[in-house]
Amino acid sequence: MATLEDIGRALGVSKSTVSKALSGAGDVSEAMRKAVLETAVELGYSRLHRSDEAARIAVFITNMDFSRPEDFGYDILVGFRKLAEPAGYHVSIIALNHEMENSSTYDEYMMRGNYEGGFFLGLSLDDPWLKDFASCRTPAVLYDNRVSGNPAVTYVGADNMEAMQLAVSYLKGLGHRKIGYLSSELGAYVYQQRYLDFFRALQENGLPCDQSLGRSSLLPSVCVTEHLPVLLSQGCTAIVCSHDALAIQVLARCREQGIRVPEDLSVLGFDDLPACASTVPPLTTIRQNRTEIGKSAYCALSSQIHGVPLSTFLLHTELILRGSCTAPSKTT
Amino acid sequence: MATLEDIGRALGVSKSTVSKALSGAGDVSEAMRKAVLETAVELGYSRLHRSDEAARIAVFITNMDFSRPEDFGYDILVGFRKLAEPAGYHVSIIALNHEMENSSTYDEYMMRGNYEGGFFLGLSLDDPWLKDFASCRTPAVLYDNRVSGNPAVTYVGADNMEAMQLAVSYLKGLGHRKIGYLSSELGAYVYQQRYLDFFRALQENGLPCDQSLGRSSLLPSVCVTEHLPVLLSQGCTAIVCSHDALAIQVLARCREQGIRVPEDLSVLGFDDLPACASTVPPLTTIRQNRTEIGKSAYCALSSQIHGVPLSTFLLHTELILRGSCTAPSKTT
Repeated sequence: MATLEDIGRALGVSKSTVSKALSGAGDVSEAMRKAVLETAVELGYSRLHRSDEAARIAVFITNMDFSRPEDFGYDILVGFRKLAEPAGYHVSIIALNHEMENSSTYDEYMMRGNYEGGFFLGLSLDDPWLKDFASCRTPAVLYDNRVSGNPAVTYVGADNMEAMQLAVSYLKGLGHRKIGYLSSELGAYVYQQRYLDFFRALQENGLPCDQSLGRSSLLPSVCVTEHLPVLLSQGCTAIVCSHDALAIQVLARCREQGIRVPEDLSVLGFDDLPACASTVPPLTTIRQNRTEIGKSAYCALSSQIHGVPLSTFLLHTELILRGSCTAPSKTT
Repeated sequence: MATLEDIGRALGVSKSTVSKALSGAGDVSEAMRKAVLETAVELGYSRLHRSDEAARIAVFITNMDFSRPEDFGYDILVGFRKLAEPAGYHVSIIALNHEMENSSTYDEYMMRGNYEGGFFLGLSLDDPWLKDFASCRTPAVLYDNRVSGNPAVTYVGADNMEAMQLAVSYLKGLGHRKIGYLSSELGAYVYQQRYLDFFRALQENGLPCDQSLGRSSLLPSVCVTEHLPVLLSQGCTAIVCSHDALAIQVLARCREQGIRVPEDLSVLGFDDLPACASTVPPLTTIRQNRTEIGKSAYCALSSQIHGVPLSTFLLHTELILRGSCTAPSKTT
């Protein structure tokens, strides 16, 4: 393993300058600090922990609520911390933003903060660090994002392909032939994946799979006011939604418009948020077990930190039957 | 949890008959034993361990050598046992065959043997138990086989999609344009998957991906005497093989035929068997870390036994550069 001397030698500066730069002491220029961090990463330097100091893990969150029990990220974080903290890790929760990502690389950020690894929730495909993950050396576990070819990066999530199979074959079993799909913007890996998996499931079930059956927008209001009527006019008797929050908006819109759910339209969600049990009608949905996902993410990160090159770690999903789906009332 | 009484009540027999049937005592008819096992599985009965008795796990092996260090399965088993035995499990290694699979269901077999879970190596798509895995209740971890929709079944293996990306983009970087693929028979999930992933990688790399570039046979001799010449006549300057044993046969055949590797033809394997380091020339290949796969399989099975619904657990692969690939000597 590289030492402080090795880093100093590579840069032609003293060991004490290197040490100050790494510890964030005030009398080293920002340019020097950056050069030292980059070189330390390059040489594979790892800071040793003092024996009285807990090892540190960072959880980075963006585009996701997590502070209240009804928020999507809450149970994931609880699951993660339930395993990480008893194992002796200090877990820092960090709100990620593009400015932060642009100001240093992922490796530099982690070295500066003395973190052994990071768990990421809610990354979009345009997050600048996503490029870093192709070659970073610090273990990173990405919820719902797949980065191929780097042994230090692991993808953790729900088995979306299985989930879409469960949803589509259930609706087909009820008698639906024309099933539509409404999605959030396809700017996140997970939404792209579910979209593709939905169409693969249609195909494998021998159902019509014209691309016009899938529609997406960043704005739920566009999904419900523009896309939903188009799907209905195409003869869809059931709609699968990319996530529960959108499905709940579809239920609200149907109520406004006098479209009866499930008699006129079956609606199926994804996630099983706590709110699904109390919508009108209660929402049939695909459950991803968020506490287990959080625990699995910790197991994956811990494996990575110990050198196990985990690539992919997916959990089974489950179809939760409530009141928002039934057999279609008319033939299409 | 169901008791012996519950099983007896369901069948209208005494608790002692149920107990004898489950323990394999001699004075119960085979028909009764089968009925008791089926009912026990149906009711979710689990046998309790005596405190002096180790919990039991079964490893089922078929179509795979594993007894010597140079065998494919050896390191997988070592990795598995390295974690399972210190954790207190007794591990039984069982040669699987169709007769055994036809004589009882997976759940019945496991209940009769008092096994908490099974790890499967080498299953083909025509193995009768593969159908059982769609709905079995006993945890099963399948190496290189994906069964969707059952929370008790986990797929463990190498990230084949990443592997084919590594192989194809490396060969493209060397200057190859027309890359062929030779495969074992497509009667196993893993060979089907690698075949599809190879073509996906060609497509993503913007290379010709005519289906005639992929050829398969159960017999390596057919691959090297019939398929290899066809690929060469199509202008292939590089061949990716579905597994090392086949790549090694390709090297031998090229030597016989005066085809120089790598000057006339680049050859790339999959697995990184110990033999690859001493072939002539040494084989460039994709490594799957078999010890880590064995360890991961144990982690997955242990998670399953504790109720974590793991679906998929993949490990990163690694491109091992040796002497069997170089830039193509002539333009195609």
